[in-house]
Amino acid sequence: MTTIIGVDVIDVRFPTSRSLDGSDAMNRDPDYSAAYVVLRTDAPDGLEGHGLTFTTGRGTEVVVAGVHAIEPLVLARSVEAIEADLGAFWRELVGDSQLRWIGPEKGVIHLATAAVVNAVWDLVAKRAGKPVWQLLSEMSPEQIVALVDFRYLTDALTPEQALAILQEALPGRDERRAELVRDGYPAYTTSVGWLGYDDDKIRRLCREALADGWTRFKLKVGADVEDDIRRARIVREEIGPDRMLAVDANQRWDVGVAIAWMARLAEFDPYWIEEPTSPDDILGHAAIARAVAPIRVATGEHVHNRIMFKQLLQAEAISVCQIDSCRLGGVNEVVAVLLLAAKFGVPVCPHAGGVGLCEYVQHLSPFDYIAVSRRLDGRMIEYVDHLHEHFLDPVTVVRGFYRLPTRPGYSAEMHPASLADYTFPTGRIWRQEAI
Amino acid sequence: MTTIIGVDVIDVRFPTSRSLDGSDAMNRDPDYSAAYVVLRTDAPDGLEGHGLTFTTGRGTEVVVAGVHAIEPLVLARSVEAIEADLGAFWRELVGDSQLRWIGPEKGVIHLATAAVVNAVWDLVAKRAGKPVWQLLSEMSPEQIVALVDFRYLTDALTPEQALAILQEALPGRDERRAELVRDGYPAYTTSVGWLGYDDDKIRRLCREALADGWTRFKLKVGADVEDDIRRARIVREEIGPDRMLAVDANQRWDVGVAIAWMARLAEFDPYWIEEPTSPDDILGHAAIARAVAPIRVATGEHVHNRIMFKQLLQAEAISVCQIDSCRLGGVNEVVAVLLLAAKFGVPVCPHAGGVGLCEYVQHLSPFDYIAVSRRLDGRMIEYVDHLHEHFLDPVTVVRGFYRLPTRPGYSAEMHPASLADYTFPTGRIWRQEAI
Repeated sequence: MTTIIGVDVIDVRFPTSRSLDGSDAMNRDPDYSAAYVVLRTDAPDGLEGHGLTFTTGRGTEVVVAGVHAIEPLVLARSVEAIEADLGAFWRELVGDSQLRWIGPEKGVIHLATAAVVNAVWDLVAKRAGKPVWQLLSEMSPEQIVALVDFRYLTDALTPEQALAILQEALPGRDERRAELVRDGYPAYTTSVGWLGYDDDKIRRLCREALADGWTRFKLKVGADVEDDIRRARIVREEIGPDRMLAVDANQRWDVGVAIAWMARLAEFDPYWIEEPTSPDDILGHAAIARAVAPIRVATGEHVHNRIMFKQLLQAEAISVCQIDSCRLGGVNEVVAVLLLAAKFGVPVCPHAGGVGLCEYVQHLSPFDYIAVSRRLDGRMIEYVDHLHEHFLDPVTVVRGFYRLPTRPGYSAEMHPASLADYTFPTGRIWRQEAI
Repeated sequence: MTTIIGVDVIDVRFPTSRSLDGSDAMNRDPDYSAAYVVLRTDAPDGLEGHGLTFTTGRGTEVVVAGVHAIEPLVLARSVEAIEADLGAFWRELVGDSQLRWIGPEKGVIHLATAAVVNAVWDLVAKRAGKPVWQLLSEMSPEQIVALVDFRYLTDALTPEQALAILQEALPGRDERRAELVRDGYPAYTTSVGWLGYDDDKIRRLCREALADGWTRFKLKVGADVEDDIRRARIVREEIGPDRMLAVDANQRWDVGVAIAWMARLAEFDPYWIEEPTSPDDILGHAAIARAVAPIRVATGEHVHNRIMFKQLLQAEAISVCQIDSCRLGGVNEVVAVLLLAAKFGVPVCPHAGGVGLCEYVQHLSPFDYIAVSRRLDGRMIEYVDHLHEHFLDPVTVVRGFYRLPTRPGYSAEMHPASLADYTFPTGRIWRQEAI
């Protein structure tokens, strides 16, 4: 019998705004950050679950407060009881009759839920001695269905339909797993095209990325159309006509502007336009999708729950489903969206531009391929190249493919020294910044 | 020159869960609460702006943290500069390039924004020596348009279209104002039908309400259909066939369940079904609306911003638009939604089931009638009868009509003694609770 005896929450911030890493049309100066949770247990081996939710600087302290609000729902709980019904545990977290007023299932409290749920999955996977992708991929269809909260989904996906999708994917699980272990999971890189980078830097980074074997690229756009045309031309010149180029406007446009702007960028053959407008605007995305086809519309890093994804799929508003491992309420809700996307036949390409996100989603896409969608066409995981050095089990990306993680857990555990140095505002780095 | 020199934030909670006031199918045991903001100025007369956002107990402290995160955007600002461009001020609050990650414009950070924006409007109206409804109603169409953030709205409503709506309403402003001052603004009562009340209490409260002149009633439903039928029958028996009876499921149902449940309740001639499903489910509300017509679908107390309301209107998902003065980002965003609703010809019936909400919305509906929609048909303001004694300028409702407030400001300033007694967890009331 193991009990959760402590919930530590740390406000960790990296001063990325100094180098404009991560800069885009809406996020001019992000300091990649996290509300970082440690679930301490009374296990004799000192077992802990580590989880985080990604943030961009200011406001991380509000998410920390959100985790503290959830804490009573976790503290003193039996790990075995949580493990025995992870779906019920999730529903309890999001269903608190008073806390749900400040969501429900959106914004700060849902980001906080994600950090806690991710930490629980880290704990559970460590106890099982498996990485999360493997733990999920070895569950029975019934066990997977039981993880999901089907509330508000049943007009699009019932538990029975979800079960059928998973049962259909039972044959071939071993082969698909062996294939991924051998070849890795396809990735694309966002690291060449942050908005704050000058033309020379973009050109240099494209060449370096090509030399490293990358074939899929993403460029930030949306602030100035003439700049975008010049920058897209540079990337196309460098990567050639056949490699993939996606563009990402980070919510900068209204519907009409998005349509007009993409008409200007169409000559560069964008594979998708990501976040053309407000993440809340399902009907707006649908209108844009109709207008810009055959360019695909992608969104998800700000799509706050499974109910929003359900509608984006129902409205044929997206051709690319970009789950975010921390915006959604952790693993359980990601599983719900993977099932919805499979039902609608839309590929899932996880968002990972942030700290810890690559580490998380490298577990989710392999599970999707092995046990849910059974497809790799049009599927790829975002990759950004910074801050991985702070993790005990950082991602390994080789020539444009994620190697599958092997260490038990969910891979987003930071080195104690990194946590100490980057704690805001008292860590060494921030005390130096303040001087 | 007046400067904001302090931002105080108070966690105020009323132990309403003891009496099940406010209880419904999702909110079993709310403690009506508020994150309460005081903007202190250096004005010689000690001028302050008071504002709040409504919460239901646990989690209020997270909203308080949200206000603290916004504080640097308000502190040391010139009141005159804010007044000179309230629209720009609003866009700054919601547009912080780091804070927007934890929203944007939803959940905790948007609730916190509402408290601050409402406090600013209290301040501005006090300086003008007018109640907020009057201040708004005397603005020119151009000034009103300038309050609104049209980002993400222009596919449904442009600034030019908004201006035309307001200009069309210029003639007759004085007559409509005089009419409201004379007659009041229509109201309906929710106080008879909280879910935690037993049948005898419902019957008694109906009789009392009828004696008080009420003609419009709302009943909480959604937990058990046989209970709902019995309770609806009691209310219908008491109020007769011609008075209005709305029902409210507080998000309890999936789409299919909502449709089936309302078929059972149709015999009681419900005027609207409120919150039949998730507030995020625009397409779900549209499907329910098609199925349950001619019963109207209403929602809004959990509709988090103007972009969501835009879509509910575009999709013909609602026939009743229930703005919430604190869920939306305060007065500016409410004005945006009033204009959208006018464009789509949908009546606005504000949500007010909470503490301070009646005090707020009594300003918003009169402005809607005087300067925007010019209509009263199908328009009414919710009324609940508790906690008004804590306010300096409580609502006055006479025989089912709100009397227009006359005191300068936004009416949600609490008595210092109430703030002190109900501060959580250190106030007198909560120290007693803890014993």
